[in-house]
Amino acid sequence: MRKICVVLVDRANYGRLKPVMHALQDHPELQLQVICAGTMVLERFQLPVNVVRNDGFPVDGEIYLELEGSTPTTMAKSVGIGTIEFASEFQRLKPDICLIIGDRYEALSAVLAAAFMNLCIAHIQGGEVSGSIDESTRHAMSKYSHFHFPSTQRAADYLIRMGEKPDTILGVGCPSSDIARAIDLKKPMDIINQRGSGIQIDIEKPFLLALFHPTTTEFGHESEDMTELLHALERIEMPTLLLWPNIDAGSDHISKQVRVFRDKHKVGWMRAITNLTPEDYIRVLAKATVAVGNSSSFVRDSGHFGTPVALVGHRQDGRETDVNVIRCEAERGDIEKAIRSHLDHGRYRPGTLYGDGKVSERIADQLSKAVPYVQKRLHYIHDAAD
Amino acid sequence: MRKICVVLVDRANYGRLKPVMHALQDHPELQLQVICAGTMVLERFQLPVNVVRNDGFPVDGEIYLELEGSTPTTMAKSVGIGTIEFASEFQRLKPDICLIIGDRYEALSAVLAAAFMNLCIAHIQGGEVSGSIDESTRHAMSKYSHFHFPSTQRAADYLIRMGEKPDTILGVGCPSSDIARAIDLKKPMDIINQRGSGIQIDIEKPFLLALFHPTTTEFGHESEDMTELLHALERIEMPTLLLWPNIDAGSDHISKQVRVFRDKHKVGWMRAITNLTPEDYIRVLAKATVAVGNSSSFVRDSGHFGTPVALVGHRQDGRETDVNVIRCEAERGDIEKAIRSHLDHGRYRPGTLYGDGKVSERIADQLSKAVPYVQKRLHYIHDAAD
Amino acid sequence: MRKICVVLVDRANYGRLKPVMHALQDHPELQLQVICAGTMVLERFQLPVNVVRNDGFPVDGEIYLELEGSTPTTMAKSVGIGTIEFASEFQRLKPDICLIIGDRYEALSAVLAAAFMNLCIAHIQGGEVSGSIDESTRHAMSKYSHFHFPSTQRAADYLIRMGEKPDTILGVGCPSSDIARAIDLKKPMDIINQRGSGIQIDIEKPFLLALFHPTTTEFGHESEDMTELLHALERIEMPTLLLWPNIDAGSDHISKQVRVFRDKHKVGWMRAITNLTPEDYIRVLAKATVAVGNSSSFVRDSGHFGTPVALVGHRQDGRETDVNVIRCEAERGDIEKAIRSHLDHGRYRPGTLYGDGKVSERIADQLSKAVPYVQKRLHYIHDAAD
Amino acid sequence: MRKICVVLVDRANYGRLKPVMHALQDHPELQLQVICAGTMVLERFQLPVNVVRNDGFPVDGEIYLELEGSTPTTMAKSVGIGTIEFASEFQRLKPDICLIIGDRYEALSAVLAAAFMNLCIAHIQGGEVSGSIDESTRHAMSKYSHFHFPSTQRAADYLIRMGEKPDTILGVGCPSSDIARAIDLKKPMDIINQRGSGIQIDIEKPFLLALFHPTTTEFGHESEDMTELLHALERIEMPTLLLWPNIDAGSDHISKQVRVFRDKHKVGWMRAITNLTPEDYIRVLAKATVAVGNSSSFVRDSGHFGTPVALVGHRQDGRETDVNVIRCEAERGDIEKAIRSHLDHGRYRPGTLYGDGKVSERIADQLSKAVPYVQKRLHYIHDAAD
Repeated sequence: MRKICVVLVDRANYGRLKPVMHALQDHPELQLQVICAGTMVLERFQLPVNVVRNDGFPVDGEIYLELEGSTPTTMAKSVGIGTIEFASEFQRLKPDICLIIGDRYEALSAVLAAAFMNLCIAHIQGGEVSGSIDESTRHAMSKYSHFHFPSTQRAADYLIRMGEKPDTILGVGCPSSDIARAIDLKKPMDIINQRGSGIQIDIEKPFLLALFHPTTTEFGHESEDMTELLHALERIEMPTLLLWPNIDAGSDHISKQVRVFRDKHKVGWMRAITNLTPEDYIRVLAKATVAVGNSSSFVRDSGHFGTPVALVGHRQDGRETDVNVIRCEAERGDIEKAIRSHLDHGRYRPGTLYGDGKVSERIADQLSKAVPYVQKRLHYIHDAAD
Repeated sequence: MRKICVVLVDRANYGRLKPVMHALQDHPELQLQVICAGTMVLERFQLPVNVVRNDGFPVDGEIYLELEGSTPTTMAKSVGIGTIEFASEFQRLKPDICLIIGDRYEALSAVLAAAFMNLCIAHIQGGEVSGSIDESTRHAMSKYSHFHFPSTQRAADYLIRMGEKPDTILGVGCPSSDIARAIDLKKPMDIINQRGSGIQIDIEKPFLLALFHPTTTEFGHESEDMTELLHALERIEMPTLLLWPNIDAGSDHISKQVRVFRDKHKVGWMRAITNLTPEDYIRVLAKATVAVGNSSSFVRDSGHFGTPVALVGHRQDGRETDVNVIRCEAERGDIEKAIRSHLDHGRYRPGTLYGDGKVSERIADQLSKAVPYVQKRLHYIHDAAD
Repeated sequence: MRKICVVLVDRANYGRLKPVMHALQDHPELQLQVICAGTMVLERFQLPVNVVRNDGFPVDGEIYLELEGSTPTTMAKSVGIGTIEFASEFQRLKPDICLIIGDRYEALSAVLAAAFMNLCIAHIQGGEVSGSIDESTRHAMSKYSHFHFPSTQRAADYLIRMGEKPDTILGVGCPSSDIARAIDLKKPMDIINQRGSGIQIDIEKPFLLALFHPTTTEFGHESEDMTELLHALERIEMPTLLLWPNIDAGSDHISKQVRVFRDKHKVGWMRAITNLTPEDYIRVLAKATVAVGNSSSFVRDSGHFGTPVALVGHRQDGRETDVNVIRCEAERGDIEKAIRSHLDHGRYRPGTLYGDGKVSERIADQLSKAVPYVQKRLHYIHDAAD
Repeated sequence: MRKICVVLVDRANYGRLKPVMHALQDHPELQLQVICAGTMVLERFQLPVNVVRNDGFPVDGEIYLELEGSTPTTMAKSVGIGTIEFASEFQRLKPDICLIIGDRYEALSAVLAAAFMNLCIAHIQGGEVSGSIDESTRHAMSKYSHFHFPSTQRAADYLIRMGEKPDTILGVGCPSSDIARAIDLKKPMDIINQRGSGIQIDIEKPFLLALFHPTTTEFGHESEDMTELLHALERIEMPTLLLWPNIDAGSDHISKQVRVFRDKHKVGWMRAITNLTPEDYIRVLAKATVAVGNSSSFVRDSGHFGTPVALVGHRQDGRETDVNVIRCEAERGDIEKAIRSHLDHGRYRPGTLYGDGKVSERIADQLSKAVPYVQKRLHYIHDAAD
């Protein structure tokens, strides 16, 4: 049995990989291994690892790697800790292929450990372009990966231009599209009013969804940016569901800014909650009148439903977007304008830019067939011209 | 004063960067910071850090990062330790630009720390193609680097094809060419007979230079390969100066194989020594009748002198070589054939493939003028076609 | 100049050591070095390191060592990270004597690094008896320490019984007594109503002070215990100032319990705040009608003012207490009884069990005279009997 | 089944614990877990972990923790790395009791991890007195241990004086005595002439056994001391079997000194070998005419056979010795005198100071009966006097 080790470093990872994990688990020739790391094992994030277990998946390793501080220094050190810890787990689990998604530093540390241990690496979501340190991290991960599952055709083309061997690109499309297509949008969502604090929100009526992460390469600006965003939301004054940011350097500043704003202003239009299951998150995104912020999921997953997005700031610069996304500066006037433009237009038609909804089985199938290898080389040297 | 922090992770790094460090030190607008890490601070390697100090350079930080074991697992963990430790030093030294050379895992850990701390990174020797985990590491480092000083024109072209912005390539040529052009080849080299063990060697007379490093992605084969190499050398039976390998996963196996061979066979043709100053190493390479093995310096530095090279195995696969290099398998017959072919031909004409001897000042000059930045992005998105 | 390196790992450390640091700074033959670690450098704790700087002290090193998770596993790993990081700082700062206080794991990591680096260690607060892992940690720290400044005579006696050489005990008394004696209790304390949330509290009128930390060796019970405590407070229903717990394994559970209780019950009697400067904390403790909880400061510092204390649970088991302290189980009835007993009695007469208010200068004086040494040995072998 | 996790950090650990491990394995109510760490997993030490496996024991975890450098700084950092790594293994293996022997820093890191994870710790060889950092480490380990198996009655008495509860001392005697009593001394020992280098040695004829470790608290003196020892051996000029030192800070200096001495002097009386199985080592010690150096085994194991010992320097200061041991300074004249005195006297009568040869079963039996607990406290507080 070929052992495929799936690395999950946050709730969003799991949200996207869950259908892939099911497909791996169901495949007769594959054995699924799962390592949960980063915020997956933190109580502060409600231990998402338990959701994985409750969903019937094995959890073969749990890795604590987040050094407290949320500064660029601690983020760098967390990469180091993660690399040390993933090496221990991989030494023990001896997977045939490590399957890793995205561009987070926690995932990078898994890639580094695997690469130096001569393990074969398959990477989902390579070849995209964005901002933040994630941009360089994503490409560095691609340079260590032996197989690629990019989400879009452009991403696949970019990987080849970057020197990856064309036949190592084993499929195109983001597995989150599988979830989007299959999800039951009728499930009641009382859950969002049972946690966190603020006004009650009825997602069957118009509401805004707000989610703003720090941009690590602009460390220090996040407080100001968040304040602008909050002012813009205040001007709109629609019921707004705000999700707290991730754990990157700067997230503490953003959280603080929300608290300060809430204390100073009479905020009768907001509800703030910590987190949701991947499915519930998708439901909320699917129903939101407009999604406002800079989450990558606003770019990737909103299109499946045609949800309008006001994409704030530069964190997603360079990313491929569909017609439902309007970019704006982290400036209250500009954000307000983008939201109002969407309110005028209404929802968009669903698109397939980021996947056709049948991605997971393709990935499992390819991983059962592909021949693992170790030594990779910049493919240019095989060009006729050289 | 702009602070340029030079990272040195082994003796070879220092060998190449010494002229650059002099140029940085001499530049009126630059302040040189130096961090010594990895084998630079190990007594087992005769504390090369002391050479740096004795040469009049500051040493602002010393980093121990090598976890004992020389296995793929410990190499991975060493990357982690290095990342943690470099973060501490960078936090304290706050450089404007980190200057890093090559493709070793110790250097990678410096790049990772710098990148996540939003520091500007300049990288020397990007864009080359080789074997081993160094290959992927080199490209990953390029993806995190803001400025590039590739050694050859092909390497520069490759960097641009990989998505690096053309105007971030600030110069072409390896600084080791500066040393090669300037070195005094008449200095007596008694030193090589004063350390290590074996026969006396007169480098003014014909002799072979042998140096074989493990190829980490072929971990487990290095013992066998080294045995083949030793048998080939035995067949030639010329005076042979053997240098012990570096510290990568597998190096213990190689060292052991040399000892075993020496014990079993009557080896009346070999001298084995641990290491040399960069200058003395270059002198030996310059004078060797044939250099046999898989050191990257055989590819990069031999050409400056036209020294014939029998390049053994796949560690340097993909690297640009000049006419003085013949590739051969790690098989005794094939190695012997390559050496004999060189012995028949004799020395080659010096070449400039890897630099014109004026590289260091160009680097210092560019680093004083370049505008440091943080956020980089795959340059393809600026193509007309997109 | 003899270099004394003071290690601060949390706000409470600084609270006690501030007068010592002033005395060291003022001493003509001593040079003060300061390393801030643990929660001192965390934004979540409002960066106490900045208070140190603003108070005019040098900060020679900042160490991040808290691995997120607040579980026994992450606490163990944080000890490891701390040891690695303190070693880097000590290597650079080369102190003659490391001055360390208390029994926290962060402080232990400093002791470990110093001990293995052959540095001379002076320890404040050795020889006491308590619960939690702090108990063993405190004694382990004593076994690595070369000089001792215990807080009470019993503690001094215990150190000698444990095998410490009698003449290495350089003074008795806790430096926090210096603060208690010198503090201005008339300063207005509006600050407590300007942060946190809940009712307004006037500390010139009767109020309870509550502070409950997890007991790491009873990990898993802290939620229940905290709930009992909250119910007891509810029965008393006096204005209550609650401070959030420290960062030990289990603290997340306690914080959660407070939030849950606040949400479920109508809590019209509580104000919860994150933290105070050491001076403000002492003021609040000095004025509290009754202090309820398990903080070690309730045992050590309350006596200076005669503040009644209801000492809850087993965290401070074994600690020397004065007449102002009544112990009770973590059970609502028992806690209520202890509080009511104090309310009936009123305040106690100030005592000197934990110091006479002139401790800091004694410490500085002794550290300037003591002869640093490295090799220590169980003193029993010098007994006549052996 | 109660899970007992045995921690092995070097070959000597295994030498002593092997009979205990057999007894644990044979006990019907116990399950043996084994973690190999430190030099146990290093090829440079011939992978002693493989001996454990070949002897039929399980190896549940392998831990790399030695940071290269052999300086006080790297030793401190290795403690940190070890603590991080042992925490991962303990989290996974969830032992009921951790069984740890001795006083090495690698073992300390296991104790730290276990202690902070609320695991029950049983410690062998507590309560002894020696030199080096091992002295403090041993006592610190006792302060974290819940059960004790000291080797001598004096050690047991000391533990109680240090505040350990008398009924936590579950037995007296060193398990190495079991090996000594049971070993077959007639086995041919050709092995010692098949590895290493130097003259052939017949252990049935008179020969000296030399083994000198660095004393970490005297870091910097070890080269000089070793030179004195070598000069003393040269004066005696008997066949001498020299074992290379352990991995502590300073060991590189000692090894270098041996090489230098061998190169400069005509050494026709020495054989130097890297290491032996525990049994072979015991055979050599049993047969040596005089054992010269500072190994703790010279103090502990020589008495079982009455082998004369010249105990050099201060590394074992404070340790209980029997009549077969003469202490001398690390000075050539003094060492020579001690050796000659032994040569005049001849062998001594075997003694039982360090165990009666039936220790292992007692340990297994006690570990099956003892009730694991977590919270320990200085026992003085239960004294009538308090």
